[in-house]
Amino acid sequence: MPWGRPREERADAARNRAHLIEVARQMVAELGADKVTMDGLAERAGLGKGTVFRRFRTRAGIFHALLDEEEKRFQQRLLSGPPPLGPGAPAAERLVAFGRARLEFLVEHTVLARASLDPAEPVPAGDSPSLFHVQVLLSEARPDLAASGTLALQLVAALEGPILLYLRASDAPEPGSVVHDLIASWQVLVESICP
Amino acid sequence: MPWGRPREERADAARNRAHLIEVARQMVAELGADKVTMDGLAERAGLGKGTVFRRFRTRAGIFHALLDEEEKRFQQRLLSGPPPLGPGAPAAERLVAFGRARLEFLVEHTVLARASLDPAEPVPAGDSPSLFHVQVLLSEARPDLAASGTLALQLVAALEGPILLYLRASDAPEPGSVVHDLIASWQVLVESICP
Repeated sequence: MPWGRPREERADAARNRAHLIEVARQMVAELGADKVTMDGLAERAGLGKGTVFRRFRTRAGIFHALLDEEEKRFQQRLLSGPPPLGPGAPAAERLVAFGRARLEFLVEHTVLARASLDPAEPVPAGDSPSLFHVQVLLSEARPDLAASGTLALQLVAALEGPILLYLRASDAPEPGSVVHDLIASWQVLVESICP
Repeated sequence: MPWGRPREERADAARNRAHLIEVARQMVAELGADKVTMDGLAERAGLGKGTVFRRFRTRAGIFHALLDEEEKRFQQRLLSGPPPLGPGAPAAERLVAFGRARLEFLVEHTVLARASLDPAEPVPAGDSPSLFHVQVLLSEARPDLAASGTLALQLVAALEGPILLYLRASDAPEPGSVVHDLIASWQVLVESICP
């Protein structure tokens, strides 16, 4: 079978990926995200540095890939979970529910979400599914707004920015300790815009 | 004079700092921020690597220090410039004017602001002066709000997050090209919360 070899190589690549993700997850749990390096991951996974580099490109890419697995499960709840997070509730209520769920998600995955920040890479936690979701709900709740594309971008930033950016200064409170306030003020924000 | 030496060392440190800032500024202008390294800066400034390391701690710290110089001028406009950015206008109008000025500031200094992002460091552009300013104006415009501390944090994130985080994906528009839309939707946001 002449095409056997490429297919085997693709299967190898998929196995390597799953193996690397699993080893990276163990290393984060045991050592903490700041101790995980490209070289350390290659050594522990028993794979070449080139393989790890081609797979993740940057150190932040490792955390990006780990977070991506969690993101997929989160998106599934928006698409087919029960309302008001899932379909079936008014748009403003779904926006409030989305904010609550997203804040809880980011608090649960703060270490990964921050470690995956890399000035040279797009921000995974602000990826298009979240932005697209807010855009759709916002234009349903406020079809009259002109600059709703940038307003959606600002709302996603209002939701994710405090945990990704501002609550990491050494004198800042732990995100978990202010998540209830963040959920409450997100609701104020949404209900001000979508009365 | 027994205290002569420490005083001289402090003067040396201040001269080194001013010299390093000036050399870093030249390097950013000539080479681009991504080519500026701790080692390169030490070599060009004719100072030891230890001196550069003690001064800036991380590579991002170099850009943090450069941005800090611009931030001081910006804060001065809020404190004593003409209204509505400076004192003398109603709080909601000052918030709208602050957003416009801050967005223009971030677009002008996008390269520095992003280069100073470092997951291990507090975010300079979200530093306490901006947050404090929004907090003061928000509690003046809406003294009835309970969670106004976290709402102020979310508003600062709405203002700065799009340029710092989300408008840097490879397929994102240039911040300069959407700054007018960002200013317009910031105004919608402020006027929704402070009617």
